[in-house]
Amino acid sequence: MTDTMDTRELGKVLSRIENEGPKALQHLKELHDRRKGAPVLGITGPPGAGKSTLVDQLIRLWRTEGKKVAGDRIRMQRHAADDGVFIRSVGSRGVHGGLSKAVHDLVVCFDAFGFDRIVIETVGVGQVDVDITGIAQTVLVVLVPEAGDDIQMLKAGLTEIGDIFVVNKADRPGADEMKARLLAMPDNPPPVFLTKGQQGEGMAELLSALETDLTRAKKDKARLERLARFREKRFMELCLEVLQQQWKAHWAKDPQSKKLIQLVRDGKINPYEAVKKTVAGGGVEPPT
Amino acid sequence: MTDTMDTRELGKVLSRIENEGPKALQHLKELHDRRKGAPVLGITGPPGAGKSTLVDQLIRLWRTEGKKVAGDRIRMQRHAADDGVFIRSVGSRGVHGGLSKAVHDLVVCFDAFGFDRIVIETVGVGQVDVDITGIAQTVLVVLVPEAGDDIQMLKAGLTEIGDIFVVNKADRPGADEMKARLLAMPDNPPPVFLTKGQQGEGMAELLSALETDLTRAKKDKARLERLARFREKRFMELCLEVLQQQWKAHWAKDPQSKKLIQLVRDGKINPYEAVKKTVAGGGVEPPT
Repeated sequence: MTDTMDTRELGKVLSRIENEGPKALQHLKELHDRRKGAPVLGITGPPGAGKSTLVDQLIRLWRTEGKKVAGDRIRMQRHAADDGVFIRSVGSRGVHGGLSKAVHDLVVCFDAFGFDRIVIETVGVGQVDVDITGIAQTVLVVLVPEAGDDIQMLKAGLTEIGDIFVVNKADRPGADEMKARLLAMPDNPPPVFLTKGQQGEGMAELLSALETDLTRAKKDKARLERLARFREKRFMELCLEVLQQQWKAHWAKDPQSKKLIQLVRDGKINPYEAVKKTVAGGGVEPPT
Repeated sequence: MTDTMDTRELGKVLSRIENEGPKALQHLKELHDRRKGAPVLGITGPPGAGKSTLVDQLIRLWRTEGKKVAGDRIRMQRHAADDGVFIRSVGSRGVHGGLSKAVHDLVVCFDAFGFDRIVIETVGVGQVDVDITGIAQTVLVVLVPEAGDDIQMLKAGLTEIGDIFVVNKADRPGADEMKARLLAMPDNPPPVFLTKGQQGEGMAELLSALETDLTRAKKDKARLERLARFREKRFMELCLEVLQQQWKAHWAKDPQSKKLIQLVRDGKINPYEAVKKTVAGGGVEPPT
């Protein structure tokens, strides 16, 4: 592996990680050591707020500065031919109500391959995807000035996780009022920007604020703490995933386990008794 | 514990199982041995189809026969004062897109306490809750004759899991057409009944068909096979849950693990390396 950016190589590495199961750990370990520390921008907001358009505009601006950008679920049209932009859509995303482990691993890979900016997009509806605050240094919440939308954003907890807010489609009525409401939030109101993503209006100011915030985040105690908390959470999940893989493999090949599972299947043994014979203090060594 | 039905005792047992974590296994093991083999009826269908009303009517009919009924998420109004009816709502239900383990354990408890009929209700939207076919001997799919509803039911896979179908609110236009479409399904069209749940119309015929089906299911190879498959699946899940509990407890008290987690949290160790030191062949014995 090399440190220079090679998108073809990156694609191969990602496929390996997605498909190789337990062996992926070794790849990820090496990639983790190669990280450069690129800032991660998280973007969230209700469907239809124009998140993808904003991301598209941000990428355009970053590219004019020569920055290389990688992201997840970014609309490809404009950037498909630009090898300074890398996009990977993670399929299993959101199924279990959170940024999947896949996104976490994806960010490690992007960072190892030397991208300058990493963008993670997530839809904020109902219960907010708080994991994004553990992966992204800066969370940008995108809203639109529409009736009931402020209720929606409050309900979804979006106001609690935003480091910077955008009222997009700001030519619609109610944009200024929505900005005022956001600025009236107690406890350090966050910066709020009005944009028209389609026309690119307000993008330069937004980008400048994002860059300032991404830099500031590196020394901000609260941000560092939320990233640390996520590292711990993600690590525990990783350990449990590895455990599951090991035990599933063990059960599949161990004759005694196979017999026990068959007895449970046939209803010939009490499953709550059988579980003790496998994992609950039954003297079974952890499979290696 | 006693074999006679005591709803106050049952309430206590359920709370113990929900709250005691690992210790719940012992309770469940004993309860499993006390099962009587009561038939389980599963009810599913889109929201608003009138499932709860139908269940309410079925309970009423069963009660007139002196049968004791337990269920999950049943509307309580009518039966609150009847101690031959027991209702428990399982909170975590459906969060992970399936009947939770809680429902499985609940059925074991109901059966141990000598109820004559057990009813499990689940909402069929989007992806169908196929676990219901692994818990219930008979799955009743409740539909209503409304525009687009047949498309919805097909999309949700409801037609594949129903053992008996009901077109409820049958005074609405399109009921007969919907019945005809259901009867026109390839591969053994299931029985289809027209009901008006609110008025109780068609309920006696439906109940009679359900009872016949519940009896027949005990000797039906395909039904027995789907229940066996679910027992296996649920057993694997149970083993993995126990494993998780054990390891989480181990990490919480083991000084070395705590140190390792702190290093990950602080970003001072490669987490993909650290995972090997805990579970991935690191020589750690399974905690007992």
